[in-house]
Amino acid sequence: MIADRRFAEIKVGDKASQSKTISESDVYLFAGITGDFNPMHVNKDFSRKTVYKKRLVHGMLTGSMISTVLGTELPGGSTIYISQELNFRAPVFIGDTLTAEVEVLEKREEKKIIVLNTIIYNQNQKVVVTGKAVVKKD
Amino acid sequence: MIADRRFAEIKVGDKASQSKTISESDVYLFAGITGDFNPMHVNKDFSRKTVYKKRLVHGMLTGSMISTVLGTELPGGSTIYISQELNFRAPVFIGDTLTAEVEVLEKREEKKIIVLNTIIYNQNQKVVVTGKAVVKKD
Amino acid sequence: MIADRRFAEIKVGDKASQSKTISESDVYLFAGITGDFNPMHVNKDFSRKTVYKKRLVHGMLTGSMISTVLGTELPGGSTIYISQELNFRAPVFIGDTLTAEVEVLEKREEKKIIVLNTIIYNQNQKVVVTGKAVVKKD
Amino acid sequence: MIADRRFAEIKVGDKASQSKTISESDVYLFAGITGDFNPMHVNKDFSRKTVYKKRLVHGMLTGSMISTVLGTELPGGSTIYISQELNFRAPVFIGDTLTAEVEVLEKREEKKIIVLNTIIYNQNQKVVVTGKAVVKKD
Repeated sequence: MIADRRFAEIKVGDKASQSKTISESDVYLFAGITGDFNPMHVNKDFSRKTVYKKRLVHGMLTGSMISTVLGTELPGGSTIYISQELNFRAPVFIGDTLTAEVEVLEKREEKKIIVLNTIIYNQNQKVVVTGKAVVKKD
Repeated sequence: MIADRRFAEIKVGDKASQSKTISESDVYLFAGITGDFNPMHVNKDFSRKTVYKKRLVHGMLTGSMISTVLGTELPGGSTIYISQELNFRAPVFIGDTLTAEVEVLEKREEKKIIVLNTIIYNQNQKVVVTGKAVVKKD
Repeated sequence: MIADRRFAEIKVGDKASQSKTISESDVYLFAGITGDFNPMHVNKDFSRKTVYKKRLVHGMLTGSMISTVLGTELPGGSTIYISQELNFRAPVFIGDTLTAEVEVLEKREEKKIIVLNTIIYNQNQKVVVTGKAVVKKD
Repeated sequence: MIADRRFAEIKVGDKASQSKTISESDVYLFAGITGDFNPMHVNKDFSRKTVYKKRLVHGMLTGSMISTVLGTELPGGSTIYISQELNFRAPVFIGDTLTAEVEVLEKREEKKIIVLNTIIYNQNQKVVVTGKAVVKKD
């Protein structure tokens, strides 16, 4: 369901989230779309020799879950993305279950701008990404 | 090829870039991975009635091209992503040819941190994304 | 957003729908998952010689949009699918924008069973699939 | 191979079947095509807390295997799908090996209609889907 909340209906403190287990096929398709075939993501043998031991999920794939929440829940359809800041805090592995959560921090009435805190954590409640989004919504 | 440049070899001013035409299947697979089925991306009929007239490419798919350059060219394989800031400047449509370019702005010797300017432009040299990346590279 | 409505909250006459343009990549991935490489779906040359002139979308791919509405909107998450009846009424082509709509026809209190009318139409409001779904929802 | 049997060659009692192990990537791609991100299918963490303990395969993905047999074996290429009735009898999990089987029940000469019994069972011979298909074939 694509939510579609109007600027006027949104309040500071409103929250929304979405969860998904990241599969190997997600990582491989993401590599295929973007061309990011960094061996940390698609080479098991190479990964075994790194400090992580296992293949990592691309940071930008993880970060993209924020945009899903923004574009389908809060504010929802026809949100215009102005900016996103992403801080990668901890590694994400194939098979991790991620939850992306956004929370409205500020509304700028004149330009219908909304600033949101954005955070992603894994199945162990470990924070893997923090950041801020700025969007425009009529 | 996956480049793999050592911290010591990298100089302020070094540049790298990568280009790709974004296909409809890229956008549909990205929607399928992330769950972002916002009608602006996957509904032709809806898009025709928007100011853009056509289906837009997800901003985070566009932005992910930066991570491809960082992870496969400069600095290359085993780069650790610390943060990414993305400013979405102009709409990207299915069929646009994007070039993501990164340029080394600063090196922080003690922690092997590299700061890069990151920019993406389309086939008409129109800038669609600007921002900054911070990475760590041995 | 995955809705999750309780049996008690759902009323006869409740409706939900979802829309999407079916891309060539959707049809090709569906063929790849199911193995249904019928030339009507994946052979342009063959299709040109049929009465339809163009490649058709698999009926079951079209029909699957109903299950998306049932499982993510009405009744939403953790719906148990009991049965689905699908009547294929008109051809669907690559590039068509489909809307799947479900409407609650009947509630059977004792077993928490819900019967829904299910319909899919294209961008020209032409009905392409009709049918009925039976689901169980706590 | 895509079989293509003429109406006249097909006899009541004719059977055909096809088998496949359903992978995690099948389920994820199906979610990606249809937008059905119900957590029962794509959230390991959530699924562990359900009565099933594991992620389920979408019912319509399972059911689609019937259409593959109809469209590629019996009757084969250029079959026109009139209707499909699906009864979901038992859960299907990622990694299950399914066999979809169709059997001709009835031929209606005047309109070249064929009615088939359709059944799907898993690697333990447990029936997971039953139903009936009606197709038209020259």
